[in-house]
Amino acid sequence: MTALGIGIAGLGTVAQGVLEIMQRNDNLIGSRAGRSLVVNAVASRRAKPEVNLHGARFSTDLASLIDADDVDVVVELMGGEDAALSLCRDALRAGKHVVTANKALIAKHGTELHELAAQQNLSLAYEAAVAGAIPVLGAINRGLAGNQVQWLAGIINGTSNYILTAMDGGGGAGSQSFTEALADAQRLGYAEADPTFDVEGIDAAHKLTILTALAFDAPLRFDSVYTEGISQITSADMEYAAQLGYVIKHLGLARQSASGIEARVHPVLLPKDNLLAKVDGVMNAVMVCTDATGPTLYYGPGAGMGPTASAVVADLMDVALGQCRSRPMHVDLPSISIDAITCSFYLRIPVQDQAGVFGRVATLLSEAGISIEAAIQREHTNSGTATPAPTDPVPIVLLTQPVAEQTVRRAIESLAQSADLVGEVACIRVEPLASSA
Amino acid sequence: MTALGIGIAGLGTVAQGVLEIMQRNDNLIGSRAGRSLVVNAVASRRAKPEVNLHGARFSTDLASLIDADDVDVVVELMGGEDAALSLCRDALRAGKHVVTANKALIAKHGTELHELAAQQNLSLAYEAAVAGAIPVLGAINRGLAGNQVQWLAGIINGTSNYILTAMDGGGGAGSQSFTEALADAQRLGYAEADPTFDVEGIDAAHKLTILTALAFDAPLRFDSVYTEGISQITSADMEYAAQLGYVIKHLGLARQSASGIEARVHPVLLPKDNLLAKVDGVMNAVMVCTDATGPTLYYGPGAGMGPTASAVVADLMDVALGQCRSRPMHVDLPSISIDAITCSFYLRIPVQDQAGVFGRVATLLSEAGISIEAAIQREHTNSGTATPAPTDPVPIVLLTQPVAEQTVRRAIESLAQSADLVGEVACIRVEPLASSA
Repeated sequence: MTALGIGIAGLGTVAQGVLEIMQRNDNLIGSRAGRSLVVNAVASRRAKPEVNLHGARFSTDLASLIDADDVDVVVELMGGEDAALSLCRDALRAGKHVVTANKALIAKHGTELHELAAQQNLSLAYEAAVAGAIPVLGAINRGLAGNQVQWLAGIINGTSNYILTAMDGGGGAGSQSFTEALADAQRLGYAEADPTFDVEGIDAAHKLTILTALAFDAPLRFDSVYTEGISQITSADMEYAAQLGYVIKHLGLARQSASGIEARVHPVLLPKDNLLAKVDGVMNAVMVCTDATGPTLYYGPGAGMGPTASAVVADLMDVALGQCRSRPMHVDLPSISIDAITCSFYLRIPVQDQAGVFGRVATLLSEAGISIEAAIQREHTNSGTATPAPTDPVPIVLLTQPVAEQTVRRAIESLAQSADLVGEVACIRVEPLASSA
Repeated sequence: MTALGIGIAGLGTVAQGVLEIMQRNDNLIGSRAGRSLVVNAVASRRAKPEVNLHGARFSTDLASLIDADDVDVVVELMGGEDAALSLCRDALRAGKHVVTANKALIAKHGTELHELAAQQNLSLAYEAAVAGAIPVLGAINRGLAGNQVQWLAGIINGTSNYILTAMDGGGGAGSQSFTEALADAQRLGYAEADPTFDVEGIDAAHKLTILTALAFDAPLRFDSVYTEGISQITSADMEYAAQLGYVIKHLGLARQSASGIEARVHPVLLPKDNLLAKVDGVMNAVMVCTDATGPTLYYGPGAGMGPTASAVVADLMDVALGQCRSRPMHVDLPSISIDAITCSFYLRIPVQDQAGVFGRVATLLSEAGISIEAAIQREHTNSGTATPAPTDPVPIVLLTQPVAEQTVRRAIESLAQSADLVGEVACIRVEPLASSA
């Protein structure tokens, strides 16, 4: 069979990783794919850096990839949105397959690009867009293909998980503040100078959009994902959570029910025995629960040159073998608003240390329709490891029984009117995900 | 496209699971595969049990599946070896694809069956044979396809892992003896009346044979897998391991080096922070480390009706889409014998409680070429949680520095001659597998 001709757009870290793997594992890849995979062209709008292209020609004109007869598949690794979208559209219209690692592009324009690919009978693949090296799209798309996904939940932003792990620090002296942990992440290259995309959950929301569409045979709906980041989490919350038997993680979570699809990105309290609670540092993991299997989990490095390139090369081998697979997107259930979610909540309520304050707060919550599942004794808190500075207000920390999100929001508004309150109420959802059968 | 006609051989739990999933998720499966999948025939040498076949015809004649024009793929779910092998050979020779969950069959006859399938341009698929629901063969075969696997390690026998988890019991009062844990596993249906296949590692060796061949593009070599079970492990070993920062797990482990392929199944001490150390009960998990990604992990239920059937149905969808994939088996590196392995060892040496005994044992080990990395203080042991019964010999417990297996075997033989020794030396390999980058 003739070789598969590849054209790469972009020449950053991931593109260099792809070139490196394809060079190092050339024989193995050809043998497993049953044909050679050859990078014939690389294009980047910036001047060519000092990178060995192993014989591929270089151009600063992206359109040269579209025009080239020896490019069967365009690999979009430029990042960004507008130029990437144009390039992918042009490639598909010109009859070329597309492989991309661009999560924002797919989350926002994936439905359009899938339609274009289907019309042309071409492949569109983006395993690298979600959780780097972890072949989780493949697991959902193939390995669990006969099943109904009931829910999925993932640690899909390594930066946030690095920061939360550093803030947790085993509950001991090693724990850092959010600001300290972010600074370390930036120093280590895990976080950008402007960390907004990562720490405010936008990157995770892009990935969750892709996972959700695939899992439920639905169109890609980035605008429907509820998104909340980790910048409000404190080390004190982590210590209180630990006392209650939980770990705080930043999750992307999607669930299908009769009334629709919920997709949300936010911090959660996870039971400390859940396998996801044990995923530390920059590692990613996605748990997928289906009707036939119960929970399964996929874990690995979520970013970086080799891991991301690994997924791109795997997609290219699928293209070479004619084995890409896309899901129908015909299930268009309504999106369930975050206001309609029911779950347990962790509340940290900063109050004046005055007689009867716990009773007054509990009464207010009860009148708002909220039952308390567990509370950390205030005396215990004062003498515990989570010792507040002398000038800090002493918080009431509790877990609610399952209750509607709206009810909790209204109760927090009521609390804000209370004379006992001396700061903002921290509110984190609790997810008792089962990780074993 | 015409429907894919399926014939199932066997009507036990997994076959019933396949029928159930294909009935419940019929629309979803047809929509995702782009064609209908229809079970036209079921054959079992035993009389038909009270199972709803949803319109499929039943026969006690297995050959009827081979003869049927409306059977495009034979699903072998009988178990056993001889009849299953005959059926699969006959099916392939008759031009029918084969899907099976039979790990012993593939481990022992997989190379022959693959050759037969290749000659006929047919598919042979067996995701269900390894780790049940977990699409780990798919991960290696597709998701990590462009990479060199460096090593893989898995908890691939749920029965053994259930027993070890029960024996561990969090290091506390809940821990059971091997005999107690096995009895519980039998009562719960996790272990057979004759548990040999599971607890002596044979089942795990079948699965490791399949993983090893796939990972390294090699023929299936069951006879080359070193196999050791868990029946010699004691709760005391687990407590000593915990004191040293380890958990005892039963692993299948395969590694490729310049000198060959090692494949071995045995108990190991794993660092307690390794993600595999946190896989409890009947759950399975396989860690796969490749050149481009570092460690990745795949976790889920390794057995049971739904999980195993999930993998069978996924294979059937691959057949329906013409997307099965098999690896070349041309890499025929020598098998590395267990004697040639170098690693650290945990040794529990039962000795008379006499003055100078630790010095004499340490000297003997040193003269044998073994350096001690860590030891549990005997005084500490006597007062610790692993309190031996008053009549038990007091053991010396230690970890060695990395040393050749042969060296340790010879040292244990020397120890056996020592007047200090009052029982058998327990010897468990230590595997410091990295689970994150």
